[in-house]
This record gives sequence, C-alpha cells and structure tokens, in this order.
Amino acid sequence: MSIRHNEVLQALFRRRSIRAYTRDPVDRQSVETILQAGRWAPSGLNNQPWRFMVLFAGDSRQEGLAECTRYGGIVRKARVLIPVCIDKASMYSATKDHQSIGACMQNMLLAVHSLGLGGVWLGEILNREERALDVLGLDREAYGLMAVLALGHPAEEGKSERKPLGELLLEEW
Amino acid sequence: MSIRHNEVLQALFRRRSIRAYTRDPVDRQSVETILQAGRWAPSGLNNQPWRFMVLFAGDSRQEGLAECTRYGGIVRKARVLIPVCIDKASMYSATKDHQSIGACMQNMLLAVHSLGLGGVWLGEILNREERALDVLGLDREAYGLMAVLALGHPAEEGKSERKPLGELLLEEW
Repeated sequence: MSIRHNEVLQALFRRRSIRAYTRDPVDRQSVETILQAGRWAPSGLNNQPWRFMVLFAGDSRQEGLAECTRYGGIVRKARVLIPVCIDKASMYSATKDHQSIGACMQNMLLAVHSLGLGGVWLGEILNREERALDVLGLDREAYGLMAVLALGHPAEEGKSERKPLGELLLEEW
Repeated sequence: MSIRHNEVLQALFRRRSIRAYTRDPVDRQSVETILQAGRWAPSGLNNQPWRFMVLFAGDSRQEGLAECTRYGGIVRKARVLIPVCIDKASMYSATKDHQSIGACMQNMLLAVHSLGLGGVWLGEILNREERALDVLGLDREAYGLMAVLALGHPAEEGKSERKPLGELLLEEW
C-alpha cells in the first residue's frame, strides 16, 4: 500500500492543532470513541495511569478552567473538554508514566482528527494545576492534572511546521 | 463514516506490541516513513525535543544495547532499532517534554502497525541509561535516552487488555 493511500499515515502527517470551533455540538458517541482511543494507548507494565473527565460546553466548571490558563479563550469556545489526569497510585516511574500519558493524548487527538473534529492539547494550564484540580473537584493527593484536550467541530484549518528530519537524526543512517 | 470503516480508529484500537519478528529485513523507505510519523508529533511550544538513531540488524551496537536490558532477546531479534533520545537543550518542562516523547513514540508505533510491521516500545532499558548512551556513543550531557523502538515483520499476533472505560472515568458523564 502506498503512503498516499494509507489513511493512518495520512492522519499522522496531516493532523494539526485546531483552536477554533463552530457552535455545533459534539455527540456523546464521538466522545466515547475518543476516550476508547485514549484507553488503548500503551503504558509501561500496562499500568494505564490515565484517568478522564468529560465536560460538555455549558458545564458550570468550564469558566473556572478557562481562568486557569492564558488560553482561556479556547477553553470557553470548546464544545467538549477532556481533562486528562494521572492516578498517582498507579504510577511506577514519573518519566515513563508521563510518556504514556502523552501516547494517550496523541491517540485521542488522532481519533478527534479521524472523526472530522478538531482538537488541541492544552498544557499551559499545568502552571495552575492545583487551582484546576480544585475546579474539577479532584483530590490533589490522588490525582495530578496532565493536560486538557479541547475539541469541537473545526472552524480553522490548523497550521504548523516541523524541523526537517535531518536535524532530528543523531548520525548518518 | 462508521467506526468499523475508519482505518485510523481501527489502528488505534487494534495495534498491539509485537515482540517477535521474522528474519525478513525492513526497507529503508519504511523506516523513513516511521521517522516522519514521529517527527509530526505535537510538543509543547512546538519544541520537538525528540532525536533519533537507526540501527539495522547486524549493527555492531545491537549486542551492546541488548546487554542493557532484560529484554535483550527482543533487541537481538529486532530487524530495526530506533533509540529515541531527548535533546536536553530543547527542553522546557520535564513533564511536558516527556509527554511529547510519548506522543512521538505512539505516532511511530502506529506507523509501524499501518505498514504491516510490528514493534514494541522498550522502556526498561532506561534502568541502564548511561551504559546505553555509551553504547550509542552519545554525550550524556547533551542527550537523555527516552526509549528504544524495536521492530520488524511480525511473527506473532500480539495480545493485550485494558481496563474497562468505566474505571478510567473520574465521574459519571
């Protein structure tokens, strides 16, 4: 199969962060599919440290979360917010558990893209992690906030660049 | 489009770690496609902290790497090894940078799967990170080892389970 006709590769290469959304709601079935994609991420020792919340637009906590980040405008316009937490009791290695959470986030972003939706990984909100956990009503002893996935029907194309592959290789190959 | 006919979702749900490989070589074009998939992962501030090496089966360093992990048998049988490093000078947040590396690994694992190959994320080797960096000839001051991706043509189906989604949700939704 050629690269051009491989839909998985096309998704990997063409997914972009989408930060603007239409007013159209996102249905529950799509959200469940996105969560299932996150659930199937790999993790060290298969410890699956990710935990999810789902806030639909209009949730009373949406504004509180918006106030925890300089990207509050995105949080306010998102049709769905998925705060992704880490279950501290499940952790075995901070580095590897954080990597697994990243794999989980990427699975969800790819699912979002494949459903014709658009989403963005919000990490800056971690600068006010404690306040965000309070907004969500979560016990700081038990959970850490890892990121918030904001999504909706795309109202922009998204645009980004990457370094050329040559700059990422540590030797000739 | 139904979930059943969405090839991206099928890849997200059906990819499994593959730890046994046939003797067939993996061509360079496939390896480049896998690296391109990693390159397109998202990262905080778009800092792209990932750096790659590529070792084909028979590389003089393969045995040295195998001796750095209890999963040496997988390392010895892999047709390609991709050590994934972090460029310390590019880092801005250990947590977020490690998450990005996880997204990069997952993109590569999905590319491997989509090409009909099989791969596994080796993390246990980090227990001997310094020795592995020495084997690879990398400067410990400049680079950290984040994981090794082992791959080849699959000689097993792969099998794994996940917690039910209900256990991953922190509240009713």
